[in-house]
Amino acid sequence: MTLAPDSLGPTICIGEILAEIVVTSIGEGFDQPLPMIGPFPSGAPAIFIDQCARMGGSAAIVGAVGKDDFGRMNLTRLQDDGVDISGVIVSPDYPTGTAFVRYRPDGDRDFVFNLWTSAAGQLRWNDKVDDVVSRGGHLHIMGTAIGNGTVWPIVARAAHIIKQRGGSVSLDPNLRKELNGDADVKIMDVIKMTDLLLPSGDELYHAAGLSSDVNEKTAVAKLFASGVSEIAIKRGENGSSCYVSDGTITHASAFGVTEVDPTGAGDCFGGAYVAARRLGLTTDEALTYANAAGALNVTQQGPMEGAATREQLDGFIAAKRSDQ
Amino acid sequence: MTLAPDSLGPTICIGEILAEIVVTSIGEGFDQPLPMIGPFPSGAPAIFIDQCARMGGSAAIVGAVGKDDFGRMNLTRLQDDGVDISGVIVSPDYPTGTAFVRYRPDGDRDFVFNLWTSAAGQLRWNDKVDDVVSRGGHLHIMGTAIGNGTVWPIVARAAHIIKQRGGSVSLDPNLRKELNGDADVKIMDVIKMTDLLLPSGDELYHAAGLSSDVNEKTAVAKLFASGVSEIAIKRGENGSSCYVSDGTITHASAFGVTEVDPTGAGDCFGGAYVAARRLGLTTDEALTYANAAGALNVTQQGPMEGAATREQLDGFIAAKRSDQ
Repeated sequence: MTLAPDSLGPTICIGEILAEIVVTSIGEGFDQPLPMIGPFPSGAPAIFIDQCARMGGSAAIVGAVGKDDFGRMNLTRLQDDGVDISGVIVSPDYPTGTAFVRYRPDGDRDFVFNLWTSAAGQLRWNDKVDDVVSRGGHLHIMGTAIGNGTVWPIVARAAHIIKQRGGSVSLDPNLRKELNGDADVKIMDVIKMTDLLLPSGDELYHAAGLSSDVNEKTAVAKLFASGVSEIAIKRGENGSSCYVSDGTITHASAFGVTEVDPTGAGDCFGGAYVAARRLGLTTDEALTYANAAGALNVTQQGPMEGAATREQLDGFIAAKRSDQ
Repeated sequence: MTLAPDSLGPTICIGEILAEIVVTSIGEGFDQPLPMIGPFPSGAPAIFIDQCARMGGSAAIVGAVGKDDFGRMNLTRLQDDGVDISGVIVSPDYPTGTAFVRYRPDGDRDFVFNLWTSAAGQLRWNDKVDDVVSRGGHLHIMGTAIGNGTVWPIVARAAHIIKQRGGSVSLDPNLRKELNGDADVKIMDVIKMTDLLLPSGDELYHAAGLSSDVNEKTAVAKLFASGVSEIAIKRGENGSSCYVSDGTITHASAFGVTEVDPTGAGDCFGGAYVAARRLGLTTDEALTYANAAGALNVTQQGPMEGAATREQLDGFIAAKRSDQ
């Protein structure tokens, strides 16, 4: 197996827990009063770990929120969905982070973030963080943390501890134009600690240090040579593929749905995939659950609203297959 | 005259410039997805100075916004309305501050602020701030700045410079439960530098260091003894009153309007009042303009949307008087 089994300890994700506010009119930017809806529980690590827990995997999050309604809303949701929140710090001085999102006509998104300048940036290694990491079986690294002066050292320390006890590491590069880290961490140093990579778009090539005009298999081979042992590629409406370093290649078609809000689809894909693999499912089964989780998530407004239980995913998959 | 004439230099207000997001459903708190509208230009100092400029007074603001759409929206509005924004810092690292507001059934409000932890808290005394303050004729102090470790020293320094060159100072105590300063500044030390006080509710008594069961005139007399020379009391739908230390007492009735959004009414009252007095109008004229500015502002959704020009205020006052 590529990933440490669920029995070793929870999958841990470290990083931002945000309140998301979505503009309900399509257009560019936020320079005038617009209709919005929010707050929705959000933050890529939070969405990932929520889906991981709902899939039935052991799951814990490490992060920081403010002592405000936005923080309480997030922690209530995560706890209700089965996530261990004992490693979350509640800052008395900083507000819970926020992400304003607006969709453009072309489907691209504009954001206004309060991220590392919010409570999220007040995360520190303390006894509670140490306790949950010391019990961890797997670490999922979100690209948003890479290069951040405060959070990255915590992620790197957690990766070391979890690897030492036989755990595994996955990485979602999650590159986004509005979020540029200090960039003093080289992507290759992160790849070296990664067992499972979950790229989308050009991230496979960025992660391999190659230009995107090379063959996909060339990039995969280079990543395997760097120590990665499994790569699950997210292709949106074109489904997903999995390469394992033993030579196995699996493809799974996407499920057709009416898209309401694509935010969070990739994180739900990852949460379901990691949970499925750690629970011992095959790459084929894991891709199918992950595709279903991503598909169901985009049918709901709000980045975490569509995160589904394994039972709901089973029902969705069965219904889609009987339609064919 | 209590206040330095407009010709001495602009009225300056120092402090937060915010993007405000208003929940459009009545209720308590922000713990679930709610319909909202925003961003609106906001921040008590910004609302005050915008109304001051629209009334025809020379006006400048000193503050800090982020390099984001929320900051650009605010600066565009302020500049379009005639406010000198040369003393505004644009932070590359911190987002523009935000205020989420929701009205309760009883008319009270819940807030989630990102205020001094936003760009607003990154204000520093620099050459541009020095330049605008050195030209200032009057400083309006917002209570939100009192006791803030970063902003209060800048306000105090500006008060000293402006007083030295013959300028005057006004104070809106603007007390609010969600915003507690470090409280190491005593209200009496602020009163000592104040020429014009603009209290509402119990603020007159707090400012005088008295309990609110004493007679209003007792509180006024104590404040006059402390160096204040004019007090304009905001009474909302009960109008307003002005006490001058020469013994003049003026009352002005409120204008009846249909209230849509009360946020910003007190700041618009203040902006119109200070501008009117510095332009040489009588306390009676100033109270009338200030009541009209407060009334017009609550007819529009958004804290600064109802800020009206002197011409618009004249038209509103004339229309209301012809209705009687």
